[in-house]
Amino acid sequence: MEETKELDAFYKDLFDLIRIPSISSDKTRKDDMHRCARLWKDILLNAGADKAEVMPTEGNPVVFAEKRIDGAQRTVLVYGHYDVMPADPVELWQTDPFEPTIKDGRLWARGADDDKGQSFIQLKAFQQLVASGELKHNVKFILEGEEEIGSPSLEAFCRNHRDLLQCDMILVSDTSMLDKDLPSITTGLRGLAYWQIEVTGPCRDLHSGHFGGAVANPINELCKLLAGMTDNGRITIPGFYDDVVELSPREREMIAQIPFDLEKYKANIGINEVHGEPGYSTIERNSCRPSFDICGIWGGYTGEGAKTVLPSKAYAKVSCRLVPDQDYEKISRLFCDYVKSITPDYVKIEVTPLHGGEGYLFPITHPAYPAAEAAFKKAFGKEPLAVRRGGSIPIISTFEKVLGVKTILMGFGLESNAIHSPNENMQLEMFDKGIEAVKEFHRQYDMIG
Amino acid sequence: MEETKELDAFYKDLFDLIRIPSISSDKTRKDDMHRCARLWKDILLNAGADKAEVMPTEGNPVVFAEKRIDGAQRTVLVYGHYDVMPADPVELWQTDPFEPTIKDGRLWARGADDDKGQSFIQLKAFQQLVASGELKHNVKFILEGEEEIGSPSLEAFCRNHRDLLQCDMILVSDTSMLDKDLPSITTGLRGLAYWQIEVTGPCRDLHSGHFGGAVANPINELCKLLAGMTDNGRITIPGFYDDVVELSPREREMIAQIPFDLEKYKANIGINEVHGEPGYSTIERNSCRPSFDICGIWGGYTGEGAKTVLPSKAYAKVSCRLVPDQDYEKISRLFCDYVKSITPDYVKIEVTPLHGGEGYLFPITHPAYPAAEAAFKKAFGKEPLAVRRGGSIPIISTFEKVLGVKTILMGFGLESNAIHSPNENMQLEMFDKGIEAVKEFHRQYDMIG
Repeated sequence: MEETKELDAFYKDLFDLIRIPSISSDKTRKDDMHRCARLWKDILLNAGADKAEVMPTEGNPVVFAEKRIDGAQRTVLVYGHYDVMPADPVELWQTDPFEPTIKDGRLWARGADDDKGQSFIQLKAFQQLVASGELKHNVKFILEGEEEIGSPSLEAFCRNHRDLLQCDMILVSDTSMLDKDLPSITTGLRGLAYWQIEVTGPCRDLHSGHFGGAVANPINELCKLLAGMTDNGRITIPGFYDDVVELSPREREMIAQIPFDLEKYKANIGINEVHGEPGYSTIERNSCRPSFDICGIWGGYTGEGAKTVLPSKAYAKVSCRLVPDQDYEKISRLFCDYVKSITPDYVKIEVTPLHGGEGYLFPITHPAYPAAEAAFKKAFGKEPLAVRRGGSIPIISTFEKVLGVKTILMGFGLESNAIHSPNENMQLEMFDKGIEAVKEFHRQYDMIG
Repeated sequence: MEETKELDAFYKDLFDLIRIPSISSDKTRKDDMHRCARLWKDILLNAGADKAEVMPTEGNPVVFAEKRIDGAQRTVLVYGHYDVMPADPVELWQTDPFEPTIKDGRLWARGADDDKGQSFIQLKAFQQLVASGELKHNVKFILEGEEEIGSPSLEAFCRNHRDLLQCDMILVSDTSMLDKDLPSITTGLRGLAYWQIEVTGPCRDLHSGHFGGAVANPINELCKLLAGMTDNGRITIPGFYDDVVELSPREREMIAQIPFDLEKYKANIGINEVHGEPGYSTIERNSCRPSFDICGIWGGYTGEGAKTVLPSKAYAKVSCRLVPDQDYEKISRLFCDYVKSITPDYVKIEVTPLHGGEGYLFPITHPAYPAAEAAFKKAFGKEPLAVRRGGSIPIISTFEKVLGVKTILMGFGLESNAIHSPNENMQLEMFDKGIEAVKEFHRQYDMIG
């Protein structure tokens, strides 16, 4: 009872954030986005920021906050996002996704990790350093509300507010470690391109008996189109691999040294066998090689039982993860051109690019890297590994392009956190260690010559 | 006003039937199925049947009615179905699908044609012949409630009630004519096989960044599986064409003589080009050759915007129209075997046969054929053409197998009636002419030697 009360008090800000379903891909959630931004502003002021404000963008607002330290020479900008993924399929959740639940030493909720939970780690570290008077450099916070839909408004915001965002280093907690006992620093991210495809056959749904065999079926055609885009783990869109830089033997050697238990990996996600591009290991495939995933598909009759219909429309959502040298706009053009080039005259196909962004690489020779290394070592008792990861945070490469600043990715997620899935969660222990690590990073950062 | 009242009175029974949403594929509609059966029983008694009853089956009940004529030697059994297709996508209807609406000389509603409207034609013809004392043979009615889901209970019902159903000829109005001014008698139907496919990848939805490229995506795999089942209009499942009888040069010649305007056909359904098996005409493709249609597909994220997910599951509903010599159970086995043979070890694939039935051929040398010919000629002023059609009424071949009786298909639908689609409708003129034709058939049938 006493412990629950203490936990509730400690996590109060995070619980309040989680209770707002700030789903950026859902246009009916505009009010929730604004509510969540205003809440962050209040939280940051309470935590010790000198000023905080909710600033408009073309899309969802950005929260900016700042703490200036007299005489400080350097500034660290903390980036995070207050938007979350949709919670569907909601029926697979064991708790209400928007009601934080502590159970089995974990916090369960949409955003428990990505990225309300991890931003909360940054917040708490900041708050404690301010309270203890240990902070020796300026700290700025920027929290956006469109990360999960590709940060469409943030680049323009950065260009318009270069002075406000001026900093020496960007710090982000929105990635994961290899395992609870395998601290790691993310030194690479994949880029992303995402499209929606609409195939139109006849102008109305037809009786499959009267027309079947004589009129092209848009679902048949969509399947053919999508199936033809990969071949045995390779993407077949012409030019797709042109800018993919091969891993060097040295890099492959380092990747091979990352502890990885294939049987545990398969068991954890319930598969009999992994599958991917020939000639690459699982870690290489999911972090250093491009991928092609159909994220959603729909069309025709999807209700109970059998309906014999030759439908008018079929749709798919398709995404490619890209490696750092691939330009997502070029890839998007190649994709659209390819679809156009093979569209038969008996259906119409429309491709809409939905979002995208570049990959990112952080050199371990950067002067801030040892500070991060020392921080992880202090919190987790072990030297962290430098690893490239398969996810995408497109804004990181934009920061570099627009602000000219590198970002260090101190992420405390774990694979079992099920981000983007039902039953997202985060171990309470990771909050504590994460806060410890971030505090230590700030301390170490002041010691860099 | 006066005219509306008259129409309402004439169509009252049909309107009452339409207002009951007797959707057989929807398991929550059990009460409506029973209500609709009871209503048919009352309507048949009112129309002149000596007796009528609602009889139980393993599934939805069957309505049976009978009118005996003293001294009659022969019996005609009228078959129809009181179940309808689902109305979705409901948003595309311009009127309430379950509220009959007369507009522009047509009746608009789900079931206006298939098969409440056409069964109503049989009912009215029967009623008028009883009233005028012209009926010289016994008439029986059997109306089932599971035609749109493949009549799963009717074969057993027929086997259990062979005596009750004893007859010399079966008469069915559940097909269409070539055009309003092109009366035709359906002398062939395609068979049908229908499956649901479920592909399972990981046991939960995964983040496509963390896993994409290393773990098989069930939607990618489903698309590959389905795309691989056809090649340029041919079905590639091994053995699929083994029992397909080629059209004879004589048959192809007859088909070529059917008036057919390809440009009008394409314009009517809004396509630029037809597409199908090479070497066959559109009419051959949609009536005498097998087809492969994905009737529905779904999986992953289908909401607004972009969600980057590698989903756990993907589903499809697939149907094949078959030609009369193909055994649907054999085809279903070939389908399941094929899927099993190519299932990779990195996903699980489950195939569930949902329903099916054999095709049907009616020889124009049958003694009842001239009676039907004369009936169409009287009502439409033109000799009807004998044509094979692409739809399926699996129970017709079952009647032949179990009761040993041929069925004559006197259908009054038109392509523009949009059966199985939004805005199903039937021209009022076709009701009048249909009733005229069916009455004439009964008269002519008595004159057969």
